Amino acid sequence: MSQTLDHPEVDLREQAGPPAPGASERAAAWLAAFEAALARADADAVAGLFATDSYWRDLIAFTWNITTAEGRGQVAERVRATAERTGARSFATSEPATDAAAPDGRPTVEAWITFETEVGRGKGLLRLVEEDGEDVAWTLLTTLHELKGFEEHQDGRRPRGAEHGAQRDRTSWSERREASLEGWGQDRQPHVLVIGGGQGGIALGARLRQLEVPALVVDAHERPGDQWRGRYKSLCLHDPVWYDHLPYLPFPRNWPVFAPKDKIGDWLEMYVRVMEVDYWGSTRVTSAARDEETGTWEVHLERRHPETGETEDVVLRPTELVLATGMSGKPNVPTFPGAESFRGDQHHSSAHPGPDAYRGKKAVVVGANNSAHDIAAALWEHGAEVTVVQRSSTHIVRSDSLMEVGLGALYSEEALANGVTTEKADLVFASLPYKIMHEFQIPLYQEIERRDRAFYDRLEAAGFWLDFGDDGSGLFMKYLSRGSGYYIDVGASELIADGSVTVVHEPVRELVEDAVVLDDGTSDGKRLPADLVVYATGYGSMNGWAADLISPEVADRVGRVWGLGSDTTKDPGPWEGEQRNMWKPTQQEGLWFHGGNLHQSRHYSLYLSLQLKARYEGLDTPVHELAPVHHTR
Amino acid sequence: MSQTLDHPEVDLREQAGPPAPGASERAAAWLAAFEAALARADADAVAGLFATDSYWRDLIAFTWNITTAEGRGQVAERVRATAERTGARSFATSEPATDAAAPDGRPTVEAWITFETEVGRGKGLLRLVEEDGEDVAWTLLTTLHELKGFEEHQDGRRPRGAEHGAQRDRTSWSERREASLEGWGQDRQPHVLVIGGGQGGIALGARLRQLEVPALVVDAHERPGDQWRGRYKSLCLHDPVWYDHLPYLPFPRNWPVFAPKDKIGDWLEMYVRVMEVDYWGSTRVTSAARDEETGTWEVHLERRHPETGETEDVVLRPTELVLATGMSGKPNVPTFPGAESFRGDQHHSSAHPGPDAYRGKKAVVVGANNSAHDIAAALWEHGAEVTVVQRSSTHIVRSDSLMEVGLGALYSEEALANGVTTEKADLVFASLPYKIMHEFQIPLYQEIERRDRAFYDRLEAAGFWLDFGDDGSGLFMKYLSRGSGYYIDVGASELIADGSVTVVHEPVRELVEDAVVLDDGTSDGKRLPADLVVYATGYGSMNGWAADLISPEVADRVGRVWGLGSDTTKDPGPWEGEQRNMWKPTQQEGLWFHGGNLHQSRHYSLYLSLQLKARYEGLDTPVHELAPVHHTR
Repeated sequence: MSQTLDHPEVDLREQAGPPAPGASERAAAWLAAFEAALARADADAVAGLFATDSYWRDLIAFTWNITTAEGRGQVAERVRATAERTGARSFATSEPATDAAAPDGRPTVEAWITFETEVGRGKGLLRLVEEDGEDVAWTLLTTLHELKGFEEHQDGRRPRGAEHGAQRDRTSWSERREASLEGWGQDRQPHVLVIGGGQGGIALGARLRQLEVPALVVDAHERPGDQWRGRYKSLCLHDPVWYDHLPYLPFPRNWPVFAPKDKIGDWLEMYVRVMEVDYWGSTRVTSAARDEETGTWEVHLERRHPETGETEDVVLRPTELVLATGMSGKPNVPTFPGAESFRGDQHHSSAHPGPDAYRGKKAVVVGANNSAHDIAAALWEHGAEVTVVQRSSTHIVRSDSLMEVGLGALYSEEALANGVTTEKADLVFASLPYKIMHEFQIPLYQEIERRDRAFYDRLEAAGFWLDFGDDGSGLFMKYLSRGSGYYIDVGASELIADGSVTVVHEPVRELVEDAVVLDDGTSDGKRLPADLVVYATGYGSMNGWAADLISPEVADRVGRVWGLGSDTTKDPGPWEGEQRNMWKPTQQEGLWFHGGNLHQSRHYSLYLSLQLKARYEGLDTPVHELAPVHHTR
Repeated sequence: MSQTLDHPEVDLREQAGPPAPGASERAAAWLAAFEAALARADADAVAGLFATDSYWRDLIAFTWNITTAEGRGQVAERVRATAERTGARSFATSEPATDAAAPDGRPTVEAWITFETEVGRGKGLLRLVEEDGEDVAWTLLTTLHELKGFEEHQDGRRPRGAEHGAQRDRTSWSERREASLEGWGQDRQPHVLVIGGGQGGIALGARLRQLEVPALVVDAHERPGDQWRGRYKSLCLHDPVWYDHLPYLPFPRNWPVFAPKDKIGDWLEMYVRVMEVDYWGSTRVTSAARDEETGTWEVHLERRHPETGETEDVVLRPTELVLATGMSGKPNVPTFPGAESFRGDQHHSSAHPGPDAYRGKKAVVVGANNSAHDIAAALWEHGAEVTVVQRSSTHIVRSDSLMEVGLGALYSEEALANGVTTEKADLVFASLPYKIMHEFQIPLYQEIERRDRAFYDRLEAAGFWLDFGDDGSGLFMKYLSRGSGYYIDVGASELIADGSVTVVHEPVRELVEDAVVLDDGTSDGKRLPADLVVYATGYGSMNGWAADLISPEVADRVGRVWGLGSDTTKDPGPWEGEQRNMWKPTQQEGLWFHGGNLHQSRHYSLYLSLQLKARYEGLDTPVHELAPVHHTR
């Protein structure tokens, strides 16, 4: 398909006016045929309703998985395996369908849909194209958002709260909360133990609470939000507020666009309290082992009690274990010759304490991606002399450009004014097939490159190595495929462009007492005098945590976490079509991974929590298309 | 006017369908005539647009006051005094007008309106009736919701947050918050000092922060929310959630209908943090004196610093002083003969520590209103033997009946589904003239009495003295006129009805060592053995705090706070038409009162904050119809 400037998201916005006649009728006709063919479990008929190049992404509803069927063959397979037991029916549009266009300009009909299954209620998004005179599905997103009989207690079902009527020796709400928090491992076990209490674990914890799944979230930090508070002072969110809301309790209308770290920390701490998430801070997990007989985990933890200050060993036996330790696995720390002789401070970026001790000092930052830039800028602001050792090209996008061009059609005040709620934006995003997402992204990044041409020129003139992803598809694809290799510029790039921060490219040969020595082809090498070396050198796959906490065997069984198999840098094939192991069943029964950015934490916590709830309630959850493992780490 | 079952609020709901033809045209015609007459400052013409019995309530827009003009004469006066300088224009309906009805069945046209003035933007609600073949205003509400040039930073104007771009030696958000909190009285003075950090002070503090008025909220309790935490364990909100939202950050969709006290406490604590309200806990105000020369207050405080634990004397010099100490003034504690000889515990309800120490003990509660019932029920639940001494009749309404019949049309899931947002509900409430509010309320309470007939019969059969207000207008009028004399039943009434808690009526004659002695006409009197006596005997007027903190002269100058002058029990005339001294200018320059229930704290904090902002910015705020003082306490 040729690239154009058309953005389906933009078209959606332009179509906010009265619906084109015919779109709704076309969508309704297709849905009727789809429903009828499904009811007959007629795989070929269903497949015939899809385009040659087509994608059906299902979040739980049919497959109890997160998985994309690409093309008619995979569509037919899915129908054969899942249609009968799913009992999908009552397909309808939930509002008038609209005319839109694909990136290549082909006209599409876009329709928001609702439906139900045997066990739940669904919603989704359908995009039709014409092929050989017929309306066929180009993309279909089906999602389950609620389980019948287990609807969340909101609005008309909100809990009553007060127990009116006098009762002898009643316990109060706060006593019950306290008992809940302290009772884990004593009189009862959490059905779900979430390891990691950052925004991912917290969002999941809130969803599980609303679904009444007994769950506990644990984190090594003392208070919720400390993961943010402990970062260096200039840190703010790089994603704008509309992208960042947590479930149930969106940031208010006067919340800043880019919230400072401590403000986010406060919000997370508050959120845990008012959402009644059971949360143990100051808690380290030391080991977890699966007991196949009982189908539970035995998890050993050390918990420092918030009131007594005593550290106690606790054993918990959850049925489900969720690792929400952050997208980053374990730090990658290169071992350079002579590192032990270096007399200054050296540490991985994750252990960097901030710039306060380094005024007037010389700092060498190895690496040139997000952490490297943040740290370099903070050090410079604090009066250090900073050199960045760039080992490979970096994709740079300015925060404002990302916000306006990259996200604006879906996550902005304008989007809200156009009726694109957070929920709709999340579903639109989810409906874009990973396989062709680059087609949607490339035009955006071409626009960004045009907009910021002068900026990029200055960066390159300063010697910085730039890229826009292997195929020009920019930030989000890099994020999805490898979670690294970019920097959302909030000021550090200017320091590089104007030479305030030096960038060099020679590889590191060794460290000596007071310097980093680069290999510039000479025998002496290039000396960078240094008081501080920061290894902003990235992280391994999240299943590194599984290897440590559980076992290398389980880590290998589950395999690499994150990435699509795009066969781009750091994301080797084969193509997997979905984020490896994220928010869905893994090859290890009872082990799950949660996380991602604030948008993903928010949106995918819904589907993960529903999968956990279904299992908790003993519903049948046959997993279709469980992803095989191609890479162990 | 005869009473009927028609409820204008109910009619509004029934009119949620397509608008009747003509209503919008009629409203538009009236508004055009109104605007033209105002533009000419033609008092008589404006008055002619009002019905014989009519009410024009203005919240700031014309009068820089909160005041109701009743009848054509007062309307004309207002126009003469305010029309020219107000410059009100651009009157329009903001949505189609609807047909409705007054309580007496007269047809009305209801229209939501917007307008602007020289300095601000307004909204309101108009009710037209036909009189002599002409459309005239029966009720008109005009409110100012925003000042031009000082719009709040929300949505498209939300603060950016991050300061992108590197800056040497930047201060972080948390450092700035800290500096703000600690700087009061040192490098700068708060323009507004709010004494009292319950929900009223907190809501006002949040509004002032959003309007960028330098303000500090102080409270004697340690943490925000402690005013709730310290109450006895069974306490929950008696008003349902839809009524209770704070500004900017409504309770989420899964918040309970009646929130337990500790949950509210948590919410308030976090609200202060995320709304960035500068709040000093553990702070007592010892004195405040007005310096007429500088137009500021000199306020002496004792503050126990949260980190050091040291108590320090602080002097602050705010321009504006707001007493938000709660609707209750100082406790009324009766002094009974022999009280000093009583060997058990005795205290006012406000000092009651809760039931924990009284299992198996005998408790006498003097008083039979809200506090008395809460305390009696809590004591009973904890195994005490309780007798209530009822000295006058009490209005009882069951919480569910109040919620459904009393509030449901405006504050409920159903109301929301009908498009009655919190803002609209507040404005509808505000548009009902106090003078005739009883006409709207009486039918509701007749319905409640019918609904709960069996319940009321059982209560009376147990000897309890019931009322429905002097004129049958029930809870809200009692609340507005005297803030007492009722109990929203959440369980205590059942204990009285079934005799678990005894109610007696003889007046207290004296206390002896181990009993309360009632005057039953005999020489011995009626002995109530007691280990505990709780004086649930109410509070004085809020200006009692002013007398203590400032001076009796200032308290007298300002006069009684609260009440309408309805000439009903505890609310002597003459008729004042508005809550005395609440949320509006008082006879003491620079002194203001804020408070009320959660609905009033939320809604009226808007108008109080705008008045304070206007003064802070040096806008001209000529106060029309400043209320004279008829009662000093």
